[in-house]
Amino acid sequence: MGNWRDNLRKIQPYVPGEQPDLPDMIKLNTNENPYPPSPKVRKVLDRYREDMLRLYPDPASEKLTQAIARYNGVEREQVFVGVGSDDVLAIAFMTFFNSKQPILFPDITYSFYDVWAELFQIPYRQIPLDEDFRMVKEDYFGENGGLVIANPNAPTGVYQGIDALEEILRHNQDVVVIIDEAYVDFSQEGSAKDLVERYDNVLIVQTYSKSRSLAGMRIGHAIGSRDLIAAMNDVRFSFNSYPMTRLSTEVGVAAMEDEEYFRETCGKVVSAREWTKKELARLGFAFQDSMTNFVFATHETVPAQVIYEGLRAKHIFVRHFSTPRIENYLRISIGTDREMRRFVEETERIIEDYCGM
Amino acid sequence: MGNWRDNLRKIQPYVPGEQPDLPDMIKLNTNENPYPPSPKVRKVLDRYREDMLRLYPDPASEKLTQAIARYNGVEREQVFVGVGSDDVLAIAFMTFFNSKQPILFPDITYSFYDVWAELFQIPYRQIPLDEDFRMVKEDYFGENGGLVIANPNAPTGVYQGIDALEEILRHNQDVVVIIDEAYVDFSQEGSAKDLVERYDNVLIVQTYSKSRSLAGMRIGHAIGSRDLIAAMNDVRFSFNSYPMTRLSTEVGVAAMEDEEYFRETCGKVVSAREWTKKELARLGFAFQDSMTNFVFATHETVPAQVIYEGLRAKHIFVRHFSTPRIENYLRISIGTDREMRRFVEETERIIEDYCGM
Repeated sequence: MGNWRDNLRKIQPYVPGEQPDLPDMIKLNTNENPYPPSPKVRKVLDRYREDMLRLYPDPASEKLTQAIARYNGVEREQVFVGVGSDDVLAIAFMTFFNSKQPILFPDITYSFYDVWAELFQIPYRQIPLDEDFRMVKEDYFGENGGLVIANPNAPTGVYQGIDALEEILRHNQDVVVIIDEAYVDFSQEGSAKDLVERYDNVLIVQTYSKSRSLAGMRIGHAIGSRDLIAAMNDVRFSFNSYPMTRLSTEVGVAAMEDEEYFRETCGKVVSAREWTKKELARLGFAFQDSMTNFVFATHETVPAQVIYEGLRAKHIFVRHFSTPRIENYLRISIGTDREMRRFVEETERIIEDYCGM
Repeated sequence: MGNWRDNLRKIQPYVPGEQPDLPDMIKLNTNENPYPPSPKVRKVLDRYREDMLRLYPDPASEKLTQAIARYNGVEREQVFVGVGSDDVLAIAFMTFFNSKQPILFPDITYSFYDVWAELFQIPYRQIPLDEDFRMVKEDYFGENGGLVIANPNAPTGVYQGIDALEEILRHNQDVVVIIDEAYVDFSQEGSAKDLVERYDNVLIVQTYSKSRSLAGMRIGHAIGSRDLIAAMNDVRFSFNSYPMTRLSTEVGVAAMEDEEYFRETCGKVVSAREWTKKELARLGFAFQDSMTNFVFATHETVPAQVIYEGLRAKHIFVRHFSTPRIENYLRISIGTDREMRRFVEETERIIEDYCGM
């Protein structure tokens, strides 16, 4: 046996989440959209000249970059495109967080922030959310190496008002502030993207995996000042010339331009979410007012683990984290109306069984 | 202006290669395949159920991983799949090269090796090739942090025999040896992949961008011992759960399984290459015996820059590097027979004009 093992990168092996694949399952565990992507995506696949696949993609995904710029009313040079928002975020971390000061983000938030910080050797500090899972904005006013704020936050679903974000931003002009808006299209107040007009250090990150029903195509983008975007492109192209597949670019444009379908499906998810909230309250669950395509809820009597396993036995999959502070919560992605009715029925039965024991 | 610019990653901005897009152009500058991908790729696009795109991809691209394992006669656990071989190589660098000893690779080779070494702060040493652009194998016998060998090499086109590779490998059992076989399907002797049966520290990297005509879909893979592949997966999944699009996986499987079409198009490229070599010799070019889908040639009289610009004016694009030792060479990708005839005609005219001056 050679000694090459001595020089392996020391890494905490990641245990991938459950990806069940049962014909009758109801999959409410990874915040995917229950509706298919825009019918225009089908047209792209039908019409795409497959002989073009022999050529490398356009490095900058120009066509998609321009569609995003138009849609958001910004310049083409203010848009960065990546392989899902994970790729966009990882490159932003690499590009902007090279200070000795720790970057700050909440203790309960997207689980990859601390992973990337470790990977890129970025010092970081996790700031506790309050009892209602809200940020205490003053905690972010001191010296730091940058901020990462998921808004709405995951897995809590809590939306932080844009005024509060701007106040945090005003206290943080010397570092880059990332606002991760993976779920923003399901919120009422919407994106903080207008802040990029007034702050050259704020980066808005969005994804096509949730509201655009394209998790399978790995598309994300960032919007910010020209200087922020140019810096990210320098880093990106220093190690990868052709990140996006040709089909991702085409499919992304089609999805982005079908505004009517987008509004319709987001509307359906939001109304199923509101119905689900009422039912959860009726069943004795507590939760913050989710502005996402999931509800993060805890039951007054029945442990989360019991409900999780009871549902699992019925092939209904929700997410349960064994992390401190949230080990008694379930994150329930919003599916179709029919799926949510089944979920509520089975949950009610589990609660009755448990309480009748 | 905020001070956030102080903490930007210091990077040498990369200048992307020329991606001309003219209707009448002949593009012989990025080693793409002149033939479209397998007709089975069209069928995948026609039949793909687009509603599946709402779901995240299988993290491990299981279907493609298994197809590659079958094709290469190895276990599923010996295969790593990535977003083009650039992604595979970058992750291999990150995973295996964490020693204080420098990694070694030739001075003339794929231009991203030193870029990744810099990016991941890996010490490295570039070992001069001999006058015929061949590796001096003894140069790789001393202590080092790992080896990276492109075989056939780019941009030289030179193929290093498997016996020589094995001799290098025998002297390097304590480090990981990467063999980058981007162009191997155009060579006679073929892949060194059987070495993985006897050496647990050799990693064979291949791409779908050249011989499989799928540069636009970003697919690459690595084959190695179970331990090597497990280590790469640990690193990969520590920062990116879903690297491959759903369509890349499907399209990759279709291309891999159409062996007949693959042999036919590789055969056509190889015969156009052999014809081109004869013509280049006739015109007064010198070159090593290329085993790739390009020829790396220098003219006895006319400077490379003159030929490059003369061809460019006719909308024929070849590659010219301004790097020491090779600044008088052109890298000419092999196109269709018709394209290569046009290329030879125009080159002949440029040489006549120059010599008649």
